Amino acid sequence: MELKHVLSSQQFSKEFLYDIFKRADEFREHPRETLKGKILAVLFYEPSTRTRLSFESAMLKLGGNIIGTENAREFSSVSKGESLKDTIRNVANYVDGIVIRHNIDGAALEASEVSRIPVINAGDGKGQHPTQALLDLYTIYREIGRLDNLNITIVGDLACGRTVRSLSYLLAKFEGTKINFISPSNLKVGDDIKNYLNKHQVQFKESENLEEVLPNSDVIYMTRIQKERMSAENYEKAKGKFIIDEKNLNLIPRASILMHPLPHLEEINLPIEIENQDKRVAYFRQSENGLYLRIALLDLLMNKNY
Amino acid sequence: MELKHVLSSQQFSKEFLYDIFKRADEFREHPRETLKGKILAVLFYEPSTRTRLSFESAMLKLGGNIIGTENAREFSSVSKGESLKDTIRNVANYVDGIVIRHNIDGAALEASEVSRIPVINAGDGKGQHPTQALLDLYTIYREIGRLDNLNITIVGDLACGRTVRSLSYLLAKFEGTKINFISPSNLKVGDDIKNYLNKHQVQFKESENLEEVLPNSDVIYMTRIQKERMSAENYEKAKGKFIIDEKNLNLIPRASILMHPLPHLEEINLPIEIENQDKRVAYFRQSENGLYLRIALLDLLMNKNY
Amino acid sequence: MELKHVLSSQQFSKEFLYDIFKRADEFREHPRETLKGKILAVLFYEPSTRTRLSFESAMLKLGGNIIGTENAREFSSVSKGESLKDTIRNVANYVDGIVIRHNIDGAALEASEVSRIPVINAGDGKGQHPTQALLDLYTIYREIGRLDNLNITIVGDLACGRTVRSLSYLLAKFEGTKINFISPSNLKVGDDIKNYLNKHQVQFKESENLEEVLPNSDVIYMTRIQKERMSAENYEKAKGKFIIDEKNLNLIPRASILMHPLPHLEEINLPIEIENQDKRVAYFRQSENGLYLRIALLDLLMNKNY
Repeated sequence: MELKHVLSSQQFSKEFLYDIFKRADEFREHPRETLKGKILAVLFYEPSTRTRLSFESAMLKLGGNIIGTENAREFSSVSKGESLKDTIRNVANYVDGIVIRHNIDGAALEASEVSRIPVINAGDGKGQHPTQALLDLYTIYREIGRLDNLNITIVGDLACGRTVRSLSYLLAKFEGTKINFISPSNLKVGDDIKNYLNKHQVQFKESENLEEVLPNSDVIYMTRIQKERMSAENYEKAKGKFIIDEKNLNLIPRASILMHPLPHLEEINLPIEIENQDKRVAYFRQSENGLYLRIALLDLLMNKNY
Repeated sequence: MELKHVLSSQQFSKEFLYDIFKRADEFREHPRETLKGKILAVLFYEPSTRTRLSFESAMLKLGGNIIGTENAREFSSVSKGESLKDTIRNVANYVDGIVIRHNIDGAALEASEVSRIPVINAGDGKGQHPTQALLDLYTIYREIGRLDNLNITIVGDLACGRTVRSLSYLLAKFEGTKINFISPSNLKVGDDIKNYLNKHQVQFKESENLEEVLPNSDVIYMTRIQKERMSAENYEKAKGKFIIDEKNLNLIPRASILMHPLPHLEEINLPIEIENQDKRVAYFRQSENGLYLRIALLDLLMNKNY
Repeated sequence: MELKHVLSSQQFSKEFLYDIFKRADEFREHPRETLKGKILAVLFYEPSTRTRLSFESAMLKLGGNIIGTENAREFSSVSKGESLKDTIRNVANYVDGIVIRHNIDGAALEASEVSRIPVINAGDGKGQHPTQALLDLYTIYREIGRLDNLNITIVGDLACGRTVRSLSYLLAKFEGTKINFISPSNLKVGDDIKNYLNKHQVQFKESENLEEVLPNSDVIYMTRIQKERMSAENYEKAKGKFIIDEKNLNLIPRASILMHPLPHLEEINLPIEIENQDKRVAYFRQSENGLYLRIALLDLLMNKNY
């Protein structure tokens, strides 16, 4: 597999997806330190401790090392007016790979254009978050056992969420995908995604009736209403409108799974005991899958010389 | 010794204390890399560079690795409203142990309730700071040579200080402990501690006369007036009231020691030459002891599989 | 070579300079992990991600480890009023070397006075930034092939820039050095530097005509107008006054080099293709040289026991 940078969910073929999931499984079974002596730079222009720690743990488990910043915007040369391209060209002198999280759409692509070492997009603006999309799909693959003929319900902030975009792009590659979009009326899925799905002949429905679709869903993918990306008015209108609790959890089939990219707020309202015991609750396994997915990805990109 | 989490000073038996001090001595004499391939997460919701660097250095000296954040409150999913329990359940997927410093009393206990890996409390609110208490006692043990029949003077902010609480709990376990509490009238030791000492038949006295007790103290434990935990008025009243300087230092017996959890302000007013030469000045050795104590503790908790 | 701390550019002899450059070349050719098991503390009281990542990468490539803070001022005990000397005495208990970046002139010297382990100044206030000066000279040595009889043009903010100071001190050690200082009239080079150069019989000229000196320069050293160190009025007067662009780049001889400590703003206005293809553009190689120079320096200081 030839892969230089990880920038967007669209770049992956079905073959790539099945292969990287197999590699993730292998690293889970047989940990190997394939990146000894290599260094990964982790540049976060926007806070995301979960994603950062996941990448850092993955790199350390591969025997490699990390340098970076959790607050690139305030502490880097950015505050002196340096361009992203210059920052990348400099950092690329010190390390073997770069993970970048940025507040501006397209930042990772811009970084990759001047980088002779691999760049991994860990989320840029409202744009892409491809490793989240990969770990989501990897979770479905591990838990449900297939990627074709899935009935998927995506719930919540479908207007601002990166997840819904990335996931839609990936799911469109597979046969017989059906998507239910459940969102407050002010946070409906964007036309770009709907056009994309139409073009790829993916069936989808929009509605505001969560309970109706739960019994027929293989995957229920909840997302957070992102207060930080909307007006206070829009937030109040959307908040708490769609919730999974003990009552409607039981509408979900036994073999189906409840996913969430985390962190979650009131949209999931389950006691810890249920979360621990009910096999349908998959979101903590989903986050753990992210670790192995990122291990496989870092190995694939960095276990060679540039 | 079975020990899963380190949450409070009360949890340690006398046997545990003597054993962990012996282990710390051994690591000092014979460094060993017992945690190769393991990862420690260091989550600081409140600044404390000294404590953080001490834990991180301890982990690295054991051959392990570190991930974490020095500003968990601002940069983590906390800012998106995630519960501490969810943060811990996630981070526990990536690492083999968690050190947590938090601004809220009881946070470490809450974290431990959902964690399958060891949680170490590195200070929570006005509550506990058990590794500070352990290193304090370890210092007394190394420097004075015994833990029974000690005459201890604790000076400064006894109302807000975590140290006085933890230390009182530990000292109460030993025979013949006598404590002098020296504090400004507005920062006296709390009733909970006094009740605890009474219940365990520990002799203690409260006074505002430092010079009087110095000649009979085996240990003088100074603490900082914590401006950040009180009103401006209370601070002005308390600040500078009890000071160790060149003059009253000489009231302290030759074989006794002057301790401080650091950082110190005007409550210790000694020239650097005196600090370097006078054997009674123990606070920099105390901080170094913390490193070996934490090495022993991390080894004890993490040198096994969960 | 006996060297304990790296504090200022004046401390280096010609012999030291040639020796450390040879060592840097050797580490570039033959990487070695000479600092396994050692820990470097990286204490930054002022943001400088580039310098920090360069030191951290250097330490990791030597097989060592890092602890530290990218925001020492806000997060350390400094916020509780601790003196720098106490911070250093504490941190020195945990590690084998300290890199310090500080906002106050002389901070590194102060730190070194109480440290039993090596202290490296990574920039203090308007004072010194000796490793930048070393990597600048190392770049000239590698690219031009000699350090004697050089004609050097230094351009930009010569009043506030640390670089011009450090570089002037080092260049004064070599035979036949000639310096052109090109600056806006409100940011001329200081009398202290001019006196130093006169005392060491170094020829220098001040002017505002960049184009005139380009054809006779072996090295053109551009610097940024440091908005953060001057009034808005002074900044507006100085900004954009001296620029290297595609047009005047061609006034520079083929065998000469264009340097910059980075980050750069409008004072260098060259398309990325020119930056990549024109051999005279040396500033990204310069930043890479910094990595090897710091590797050699850390090895020299820390590859022994204190």
